[in-house]
Amino acid sequence: MSYFRENIDRIDGYTAGFQPAAEAVVKLNTNENPYPPSPRALEAVRKTNAEQLRRYPQPLGDMFRQAASEVLGISADNIICTNGGDDLLTICFRAFCNDNRGAAYPGPTYSLYPVLAGLQGCEGIEVGPDDGKIDIDKLAATPAGLVIVCNPNAPTGSFTQPKRLADLAERLKSKAVLLIDEAYVDFADANCLELVKSCENVIILRSMSKGYSLAGLRFGYGIANKELIAGLIKVKDSYNINTVAVAAATAAIKDQKYFRENIEKINTERTTLTGALRDLGFTVPGSQSNFVLAGIAGAAGIYEKLAAENIYVRYFRLPGLEDKLRITVGTKEQNDKLIEALKEILK
Amino acid sequence: MSYFRENIDRIDGYTAGFQPAAEAVVKLNTNENPYPPSPRALEAVRKTNAEQLRRYPQPLGDMFRQAASEVLGISADNIICTNGGDDLLTICFRAFCNDNRGAAYPGPTYSLYPVLAGLQGCEGIEVGPDDGKIDIDKLAATPAGLVIVCNPNAPTGSFTQPKRLADLAERLKSKAVLLIDEAYVDFADANCLELVKSCENVIILRSMSKGYSLAGLRFGYGIANKELIAGLIKVKDSYNINTVAVAAATAAIKDQKYFRENIEKINTERTTLTGALRDLGFTVPGSQSNFVLAGIAGAAGIYEKLAAENIYVRYFRLPGLEDKLRITVGTKEQNDKLIEALKEILK
Repeated sequence: MSYFRENIDRIDGYTAGFQPAAEAVVKLNTNENPYPPSPRALEAVRKTNAEQLRRYPQPLGDMFRQAASEVLGISADNIICTNGGDDLLTICFRAFCNDNRGAAYPGPTYSLYPVLAGLQGCEGIEVGPDDGKIDIDKLAATPAGLVIVCNPNAPTGSFTQPKRLADLAERLKSKAVLLIDEAYVDFADANCLELVKSCENVIILRSMSKGYSLAGLRFGYGIANKELIAGLIKVKDSYNINTVAVAAATAAIKDQKYFRENIEKINTERTTLTGALRDLGFTVPGSQSNFVLAGIAGAAGIYEKLAAENIYVRYFRLPGLEDKLRITVGTKEQNDKLIEALKEILK
Repeated sequence: MSYFRENIDRIDGYTAGFQPAAEAVVKLNTNENPYPPSPRALEAVRKTNAEQLRRYPQPLGDMFRQAASEVLGISADNIICTNGGDDLLTICFRAFCNDNRGAAYPGPTYSLYPVLAGLQGCEGIEVGPDDGKIDIDKLAATPAGLVIVCNPNAPTGSFTQPKRLADLAERLKSKAVLLIDEAYVDFADANCLELVKSCENVIILRSMSKGYSLAGLRFGYGIANKELIAGLIKVKDSYNINTVAVAAATAAIKDQKYFRENIEKINTERTTLTGALRDLGFTVPGSQSNFVLAGIAGAAGIYEKLAAENIYVRYFRLPGLEDKLRITVGTKEQNDKLIEALKEILK
């Protein structure tokens, strides 16, 4: 017999991107920032003392909440700290979804959403494409208790304007929360932070993994009105974030100068990479993120050949993504290596 | 309206122990180890480099699994790494419990279990006392999909012999998992590790927070047969543990000499503290943990008076615990301060 709930047995679980142990690879497969984090973040880690390890963390990550509230111009009570953005996603599924209230999202999108629906045992409702023209009418018409829009979207890199998401939030107000997954928003021209002030049912997800180069630390946060935050805090594990991660994330978000320079370098490189891929015959929509979705016939084979040369990009065996590679924007050197390898492969 | 599921609105959430920001307090309220972690753990944290922060962690914490498998004499495939022991508890409720399959546990016990039942929306069934004489017949008779025995139990410090838990596992085999929460087992004379080899439905929870002095890092793990571990891995967040925590936990578990000396010091001090409390008129059952449950009339008032002197112990406003204080075993100096303060208060 199985001891697991039926819905757990039914699903496959999430397939994480390959994490090669070796360091000498061109790793453009899981959207890490190619540049190191702020030196102040590393310094915060290295200054850890034994007492910080021995004692439990502050349950709510007050130090980070305070710093983020100053950077973002909101109150600390509007922030929940989580063990990576994924922790917030899990918390939201547990908080808002059940047998009768599913989760709806445009697609293709972050492939974790349907997995979390399966784990919670709620319906996962994929509604139309997300290429920057999400179908608001359809999203507003589902019986979902949780609607998620990844913005910028992964893996397309497309961006939905805040105005449209404000409309969606308004139409969902009587029945559902709108979770705007801004894991990649640091690389975009705009964001939805202001919506939190005007829409009682909006939760913004942010991550320190991408824009702040701290994927190894697992630190994300949510922004919403105080009532929603208070409810989410009930659901989270009481000590969900660790002391070292809080210290480093705090140091990183305070260092806005380093952050902005980092983002600018990546966005410049994104433009160059997009052009080079197009020159090779790839179809590459403009991206507002730190990756591009590059379309070409035979993408799966190209993926394999790149991997054989220790160049890792992401290939999803999912409907609509068969002929596409998601490529993280790397350093100039990494991107050049990729382009050179692709030239050889496509010869 | 509320956007939350009804069961979320219904519950209060877990009340974490008070975490005073100041360092100059006698903190005996959340069962931290009074001694620092192995110097090797701190060294591992301080050796962190920027690349470790920038990149995603190994999803399963392979480095720790390997080290723990050597220390424990089991296979790495029998281990799941979690973000503190609480993460494993949450994973188990999500994996095994639903409307029809509740969670059963003796009580009073770790006050998080009923909170997790409330969050999952399953029945939380408290069965009889846990004073080392748990009621196996009653536990085996519930409709639970998950039975939890905290062993040594918190907050009583009592210990149920592995033989009895093997019997319970056997009787649950056709219908439920037995989760043995060994968060405090490092301070006990025995443990249930062997049961994993003979009982297909047993999961052991371990924590690095107490015996290894790493509460600030959030690192725990589960031990079970490979099939159960594989299912639990589907449920966990894909990157649930961070790179720095894995490195430090690995260094700590490898340093068994430091660990054993640390445990011995605490167990010696536990004997002294128990005697001193009994001399003051407290009823103190023998403890197999790093805390004692000290009974006395007017415990709530004593708790308040101690807090006013910056001495923090734990008082639970729960049935059966009205006249009891849970006191973590501190250093000799901390315990002496506590006893001196109690002498004044009880004059």
